Amino acid sequence: MTLSRRDLLRSSLLTGGAGLVASMASLSVPMPGFAAAPKAGVQTTGAYRFSVGKFEITALLDGYIDAGSDLIPNYDPEVAEQLYKDQFRTPPVDKIRVPINSFVVNTGDKIILIDSGTADNMGPTLGQFTDNLKAAGIAPESVDAILLTHMHVDHISGITSKEGKAHFPNAELIVHKKDWDFWHDDSYMSQASDFLKTNSANAKAMSAPYSKRLTLIDKDGEVLPGIEAVALPGHTPGHTGFVLRSENQEVLIWGDVVHFTALQFQHPEWSIAFDIDMQQAEQTRRRMLDWVSADRVAVLGSHLEFPGLGHVARERDNYRYHQSSWQYQL
Amino acid sequence: MTLSRRDLLRSSLLTGGAGLVASMASLSVPMPGFAAAPKAGVQTTGAYRFSVGKFEITALLDGYIDAGSDLIPNYDPEVAEQLYKDQFRTPPVDKIRVPINSFVVNTGDKIILIDSGTADNMGPTLGQFTDNLKAAGIAPESVDAILLTHMHVDHISGITSKEGKAHFPNAELIVHKKDWDFWHDDSYMSQASDFLKTNSANAKAMSAPYSKRLTLIDKDGEVLPGIEAVALPGHTPGHTGFVLRSENQEVLIWGDVVHFTALQFQHPEWSIAFDIDMQQAEQTRRRMLDWVSADRVAVLGSHLEFPGLGHVARERDNYRYHQSSWQYQL
Repeated sequence: MTLSRRDLLRSSLLTGGAGLVASMASLSVPMPGFAAAPKAGVQTTGAYRFSVGKFEITALLDGYIDAGSDLIPNYDPEVAEQLYKDQFRTPPVDKIRVPINSFVVNTGDKIILIDSGTADNMGPTLGQFTDNLKAAGIAPESVDAILLTHMHVDHISGITSKEGKAHFPNAELIVHKKDWDFWHDDSYMSQASDFLKTNSANAKAMSAPYSKRLTLIDKDGEVLPGIEAVALPGHTPGHTGFVLRSENQEVLIWGDVVHFTALQFQHPEWSIAFDIDMQQAEQTRRRMLDWVSADRVAVLGSHLEFPGLGHVARERDNYRYHQSSWQYQL
Repeated sequence: MTLSRRDLLRSSLLTGGAGLVASMASLSVPMPGFAAAPKAGVQTTGAYRFSVGKFEITALLDGYIDAGSDLIPNYDPEVAEQLYKDQFRTPPVDKIRVPINSFVVNTGDKIILIDSGTADNMGPTLGQFTDNLKAAGIAPESVDAILLTHMHVDHISGITSKEGKAHFPNAELIVHKKDWDFWHDDSYMSQASDFLKTNSANAKAMSAPYSKRLTLIDKDGEVLPGIEAVALPGHTPGHTGFVLRSENQEVLIWGDVVHFTALQFQHPEWSIAFDIDMQQAEQTRRRMLDWVSADRVAVLGSHLEFPGLGHVARERDNYRYHQSSWQYQL
């Protein structure tokens, strides 16, 4: 981005002062403007590609949220600060920056979307899923299936517009039966917390346009060629992982098994208050960490640092996360 | 990228068979085409931004090269394979994938380019610097200064065309006097290896258009506001690092102190055969690793895994590299 002072003045002359501000905001030039060398002010992309065998996967960033550390009942500030220091991180004070990632898998035959971001439901640092999907050159009409790890607001909101129109007109919706039933249980939800009520209303509204092309998963195993469902209960009752396998390579898309990249590998017992069953979520997390570290399975996470791809190693009594390095060639 | 079969056929009809192949190659659709769901086949970007205080830095990828392990005289395949395994890497057999990175620093007042890739001098997996500079929205005319860490072919080749035209018409060229003198020493070069001869000829040709706007560094210290030169001799006689400082943040651009991200933090004694003085290069590497690990200074490397940004921690007798995680907000 190189925006000259003349461009700014011309914009101002054409549209007036408010237009100048709008123009500068949309071009991401920081206020106040007229610097000698305007900065871009935004990251270059929110999409990143990699291969797993013949599958091409595109990670799509929806944005980030600065979550309060009070969301982790077991949070110990001194322990956390040491972990941040060891990892050369400088998080905002009392906040933990958490990205929200979705994924598109191109198997060569089918295009499959896994989760879909927040739309405009969670504030201005989020909601970039649709733009990043477009920037990655993936047409909504080309998507054959949508797999949901679960139906929380930050995973389902990108599939349908506020007006109830399906964004993916040709896609089958595939979600675990236990998750579908939980969020559609009106009698349970009428007694539930506002957090659950809001999520239930949103899950019902977002999934409604897909009711005639819906597949409910009720057991582990293949859901599409090369893609296998694995029940990961705890975060939600029907929280589901998907193992992608192609040409002797595999990756586990584990949804919300880990929310905090800097903390939960060393402290798997630090569950998040959003878990429906925090103890079961911890058991599931430990079971997955055991498996992927023992078998060296790559993991892809909804909330692992973007693009969300890495490996897990055992370290002392717990684990260590290895973010994958840049993939130069697909 | 969604390219329909009809688009391909139309391209074929318009241009003939060869045109079809060329069109497919330029659109990065893998051969053979006509898959139900064409893959993109290439990474989404070769540019990545981050902030250091008020400075906005853009890392630009030129591409990668698969270097033979025989370039490291101390290379021990068993030791290396264990390091690859520990880091979940699967390098090509007997090869080490090495990226080539350049950087643009926008200080808010000046735009400064640091190194410039290979142009078309090192084969088809490289030479993307100019395209990535453009994709990042940085106009060559806006660049005020070019700092070179040294004058090797993979650092200087992007500043001037084959026809001898400066790509950066308004930029001052700043390089260490010892590097300039070394590559311009015709009497020494007439007796030197082909590798040195080729690099000398290229360095002279690429730098020639800047001879009237040239600054030679002859001591450590500030070269531009907020940018300090640090002599890092060994790889070349005038190999130079640049420390960027803004608002109590700093990063050391250390050029070629490390060529092999997976190996040289654990084995600083594994110098590369391209070093003019391998022993001095090792001493410089150890000195920098000591400094940045003790003072927790961020490093930015020409050959660290793209985008090249990380930190170094002491580990046992040696070091460990921490690749920085994604920067969501600049």
